[in-house]
Amino acid sequence: MDYSKKAIDAHAQWGGKIEIISRVEIKNKDDLSTAYTPGVAAPCLEIQKNPDLSYVLTRRHNLVAVVTDGSAVLGLGNIGALASMPVMEGKCALFKQFGEVDAIPIVINSQDTEEIISTVKNIAGSFGGINLEDISAPRCFEIEKRLIEELDIPVFHDDQHGTAIVVLAAIINALKIVKKDIHDIRIALSGSGAAGNAITRLLISAGVKDIILCDRKGIIHKGRTDLDWAKQELAKITNKQNVQGSYKEAMQGADVFIGVSASNIITPEMIKVMNTDAIIFAMANPVPEIMPEIALSAGAKIVGTGRSDFANQINNVLAFPGIFRGALDARASEINEQMKIAAAYALADLINEKELSKEYILPKAFDERVAAAVAKAVEKAARDTGVARK
Amino acid sequence: MDYSKKAIDAHAQWGGKIEIISRVEIKNKDDLSTAYTPGVAAPCLEIQKNPDLSYVLTRRHNLVAVVTDGSAVLGLGNIGALASMPVMEGKCALFKQFGEVDAIPIVINSQDTEEIISTVKNIAGSFGGINLEDISAPRCFEIEKRLIEELDIPVFHDDQHGTAIVVLAAIINALKIVKKDIHDIRIALSGSGAAGNAITRLLISAGVKDIILCDRKGIIHKGRTDLDWAKQELAKITNKQNVQGSYKEAMQGADVFIGVSASNIITPEMIKVMNTDAIIFAMANPVPEIMPEIALSAGAKIVGTGRSDFANQINNVLAFPGIFRGALDARASEINEQMKIAAAYALADLINEKELSKEYILPKAFDERVAAAVAKAVEKAARDTGVARK
Repeated sequence: MDYSKKAIDAHAQWGGKIEIISRVEIKNKDDLSTAYTPGVAAPCLEIQKNPDLSYVLTRRHNLVAVVTDGSAVLGLGNIGALASMPVMEGKCALFKQFGEVDAIPIVINSQDTEEIISTVKNIAGSFGGINLEDISAPRCFEIEKRLIEELDIPVFHDDQHGTAIVVLAAIINALKIVKKDIHDIRIALSGSGAAGNAITRLLISAGVKDIILCDRKGIIHKGRTDLDWAKQELAKITNKQNVQGSYKEAMQGADVFIGVSASNIITPEMIKVMNTDAIIFAMANPVPEIMPEIALSAGAKIVGTGRSDFANQINNVLAFPGIFRGALDARASEINEQMKIAAAYALADLINEKELSKEYILPKAFDERVAAAVAKAVEKAARDTGVARK
Repeated sequence: MDYSKKAIDAHAQWGGKIEIISRVEIKNKDDLSTAYTPGVAAPCLEIQKNPDLSYVLTRRHNLVAVVTDGSAVLGLGNIGALASMPVMEGKCALFKQFGEVDAIPIVINSQDTEEIISTVKNIAGSFGGINLEDISAPRCFEIEKRLIEELDIPVFHDDQHGTAIVVLAAIINALKIVKKDIHDIRIALSGSGAAGNAITRLLISAGVKDIILCDRKGIIHKGRTDLDWAKQELAKITNKQNVQGSYKEAMQGADVFIGVSASNIITPEMIKVMNTDAIIFAMANPVPEIMPEIALSAGAKIVGTGRSDFANQINNVLAFPGIFRGALDARASEINEQMKIAAAYALADLINEKELSKEYILPKAFDERVAAAVAKAVEKAARDTGVARK
């Protein structure tokens, strides 16, 4: 179904997918003197004495900015800040619905890395967390890294880590079915942008030892001279056997293929050279790297995509509402690797042994247990790793 | 009554005075595909083609940022961005309650003029208007001027213009009582900061010809060598007879005294040298330039203050919700002098001839007619002056 017309009409009717309301009733002078002048001076002075009280006396404790520069929006590319607003508002609506998080779009009319960093730093005091969204690679890495270093609130680029967390959850459950250990598997991954980068790093943090990345020009290895700085970093931590070539060489003997790249780049022949019980997560949108039925007939055991009309949808909405809910509940200063891994295991654990099947390795987007389970695990991991502040 | 403890307890219980909610229900795949991917791509592309559609397809049409750097908060002074949040949230709550405007605090962790300007410019695409708040003079003038020039949405420093509009409304009605014409009166004004500057300019726009300003060092005149650039500008447009001296000389023969300065600086003797039927608006908070009963016994005819426990409270809440409501309804590109003057006359006109008295020259803060009347006048003035865009 083409949702274009329906979505335009619905958006025009909604007049915005978010709204700001007042939590206080100001009906008379007494109310006004408590919520505003002269009474409001007292909570101001309390925060001046102890800045942590900004989490108690204002909405900051529950407020996240969804920040973009509009440079890599959905599959639309660089459509700019203003045009990205409907996506950001949609994200904010999902934050509220699934995670009870207050979120507001902040679209930045600059694509200069330093200017984005300074803008977000300047306004960070209004918020309890920053969700970076749809910022193109490799700028997104520098922006996120610097903001994490320079701010004391969680900064999380969802296109990277949200995707990585859900992929890790999918791998955890798929490996249960094929009875393989995460420490022993080989992974081939196509796409070394924002998502590919974060998936690689999170899988390594979670115990994966053997992972080979491909970009448009083939396998990423230390000998390549055409890599940007982000890919050079990836070359250092992947492909330890220094395999060279293209998709076919990358997939030779691989247990898992992960695609965050382009449609229809994987052929049945490539599936056939993988290890037995091959696991395929082909997440290019809207058309995956290989269609599920083709992958399955070529011998793949388990297939997931980004689409809701196939089994095993790998959908960020499973992660980000619970991640921020848990981080805000712990008043975490950051969202670290352990919190991400905890989120992935919490997601995977929602499916019990009896229910688990090759067509049901991840909870559904509307499974009401998801955000609470993720939040609980993330909050606990924040406490266990010492980044919780309450 | 001291509201300090009550306000702190109430703020802790509220956990924030504003909240962001979702205006869409996302209950199933179909909802998700309309409000978010893949459907949301269509409204994005519409806005990319025609940026004006950001006012139709997102919440921008009703969304105002309440921006501060925390440099001049209430009477507290420079308490910084974070500590100013309770005031800004209170302002946002008032925006919603009185004007049905969605408003969110954006506190900027920098007091550098250029950095504040570039930060606000960078995030302006998320909003339909910018309310500057509690930024110290003279930086506030430069910041507002530049943002008005460089943005195509209304930028309005409420401490300046909100106050000026309500003062003008008070003068309009007070002059009806004393039967004087706005073109003929002499005004003495104490305080040449944000409010004093804007009051002066708006009164001149509204027809006042003779106005003398004082700062802490006395009357502002062209011969003074200790004036900052903002006061030098004021010296050019005020005090045409080049009066020199202090308060007493300024008030000699004046029809109106306006104070936006310091407590208890005006004595009964100074009131006595004013013209007959003197009008006094003494707005220093919490203690005015002269207490109403003292001014009245010294011969003043009409007295107003900033306080709710005396007659004739001059309160910004009479202006800003309706001002922005009207500007947003017209999708105005700016809030110009005509719109401000229209707002003042609309406020004044809410009190009919029968009701008008020297103790009732302004509507009350909780008069439910206020915001709608101001909004209607502002919207009409926007259309009449060609700055409306819908």
